[in-house]
Amino acid sequence: MKTIVVGGAGFIGSNLCRALLEYGNQVVCIDNMSLGNIRNIEDLINNTNFKFYKEDVINNEVLLNIFAKEMPETIFHLAANSDIQTSAKNPWVEYCNTYTTTFSILECMRVCDIKRLFFASTSAVYGDKRDIELTEDTPNLAPISYYGAAKLGSEALIQAYSYMNDMKALIFRFPNVIGPKLTHGVIYDFIKKLDKNKEILEILGDGKQTKPYIYVKDLVDAIVNFTNDIKPGVEVYNLGVTGATSVKRIADIICEELELKNVRYEYTGGESGWKGDVPQFRYCLDKIHKTGWKAQYSSDEAVRKTVRDVIEERKTDA
Amino acid sequence: MKTIVVGGAGFIGSNLCRALLEYGNQVVCIDNMSLGNIRNIEDLINNTNFKFYKEDVINNEVLLNIFAKEMPETIFHLAANSDIQTSAKNPWVEYCNTYTTTFSILECMRVCDIKRLFFASTSAVYGDKRDIELTEDTPNLAPISYYGAAKLGSEALIQAYSYMNDMKALIFRFPNVIGPKLTHGVIYDFIKKLDKNKEILEILGDGKQTKPYIYVKDLVDAIVNFTNDIKPGVEVYNLGVTGATSVKRIADIICEELELKNVRYEYTGGESGWKGDVPQFRYCLDKIHKTGWKAQYSSDEAVRKTVRDVIEERKTDA
Repeated sequence: MKTIVVGGAGFIGSNLCRALLEYGNQVVCIDNMSLGNIRNIEDLINNTNFKFYKEDVINNEVLLNIFAKEMPETIFHLAANSDIQTSAKNPWVEYCNTYTTTFSILECMRVCDIKRLFFASTSAVYGDKRDIELTEDTPNLAPISYYGAAKLGSEALIQAYSYMNDMKALIFRFPNVIGPKLTHGVIYDFIKKLDKNKEILEILGDGKQTKPYIYVKDLVDAIVNFTNDIKPGVEVYNLGVTGATSVKRIADIICEELELKNVRYEYTGGESGWKGDVPQFRYCLDKIHKTGWKAQYSSDEAVRKTVRDVIEERKTDA
Repeated sequence: MKTIVVGGAGFIGSNLCRALLEYGNQVVCIDNMSLGNIRNIEDLINNTNFKFYKEDVINNEVLLNIFAKEMPETIFHLAANSDIQTSAKNPWVEYCNTYTTTFSILECMRVCDIKRLFFASTSAVYGDKRDIELTEDTPNLAPISYYGAAKLGSEALIQAYSYMNDMKALIFRFPNVIGPKLTHGVIYDFIKKLDKNKEILEILGDGKQTKPYIYVKDLVDAIVNFTNDIKPGVEVYNLGVTGATSVKRIADIICEELELKNVRYEYTGGESGWKGDVPQFRYCLDKIHKTGWKAQYSSDEAVRKTVRDVIEERKTDA
């Protein structure tokens, strides 16, 4: 199958490109390299089934030319701002990089008559509903971050485009995604901080923020398998794992793996790491588990495995 | 209270400006005149409490200057494409005029620290759910028009901006709104068609499309009264009326009021007037009725009254 992965040089995107190639697909990767990095895809560049365009998908004319030239069967849309903490201070980032990317991609699909779409959505569309187990049918979605709002707006666009143009779309609402080639987030931050100071670790919030973390290999395997059989209309799944890991527990695992003892944790306080961050959420996974899919790694296992990946990468880089 | 009405020269906006002035407010009207018309506000231009800017709110810099200069207490955001039939062929219209207008307004509110917002949303955010009575808590909102998608995306933006900046927002999900100064829609179209041909009336769809129609005076009175007492956070209401009116019934009322007999109806067929049109919906109005508010006119009464308004306007214009 010929595919386009938009945002394919990012952390999740590059892992997805790799998985798609392993399953025998042709992959056209488009990335503006704002958060993507050539190092994420350098092992793929010489693969004859892989092609890379450094372009910004907000530029609808450029994107249309690529779509029209490549005419893929399926689009994997992972182009978004992924650094919620940054966009909390500048909502334009989400307007441009998360919402307008979706609009631009859907417009090109409409014009080129491309029918199959995978979309990377997020738990952030629900907003702060920590008291309930979130199902795909939970009402009153009320994002508290500009990121969540732009993703929910994107989901709404996909619903309308799908209906108007008989597209088939699969939407996964991701939890936190971690693994090799991580570029930001709590694990990345803590390891960087401990690099500088092995005695004191500053922890944003009260450390009790507790979320499910999925290992990126689990995630991209699910994406590849589910997109083989996209149903007409729009199908939405919560994608998740067993358990959840607190920020304090992440700090503990990192210190264990780095063999650091007696690190003093200094909490900045408050229940959220920053305004717009949902401190806790729990997914009901009945819908996706009924399909037979289950993540291989639990949340704690994913964290530990990722910490080892990052430590390993740093050795290679050094 | 000093207010800004964005989209204030349109059909609903101009009626709202008038109502706000009647209730003793200062009104700054901004409109790009793409669907607005100077004739809608010509009776207000000399009112010392009224001010008009012909500007496009997509232009964030221009809007910011106006907001910073005027510093209103409350923004009424009615700037949107309102012609769904047109945007069904060109989704850019909704991206620019319905979604980006919202983003631009919210950004200016954030920067200028303006806290109170009224937003005109729509039944189209629900999508086609004709089998159920729609409550504000109905899950799985799945718009089938680009218009509905842009409005749902706007609601999501309002949720995030409200949380991040402690804004108070009131969202009304309008049904079909009719009354004097109507510029498009089924009543307007039918009267225009009967102008040209008094014997045959072409009706899009099967004529069984049945929706609630609210009289614009009922609507703007509700907006003015509810915005006097906006609560912190975001409050969403279905705004509606008793009953619903079929397209065939509208044709009958128009023929009665125009005293036309034996007009032959020719149906184009199909359950929708056009793709993306939701042929039927029913609102549960418990939430808004519990506040004590109730529309003065039923759907059928609103239709008849509007037909008389339009006939009267045409006499004045002639």
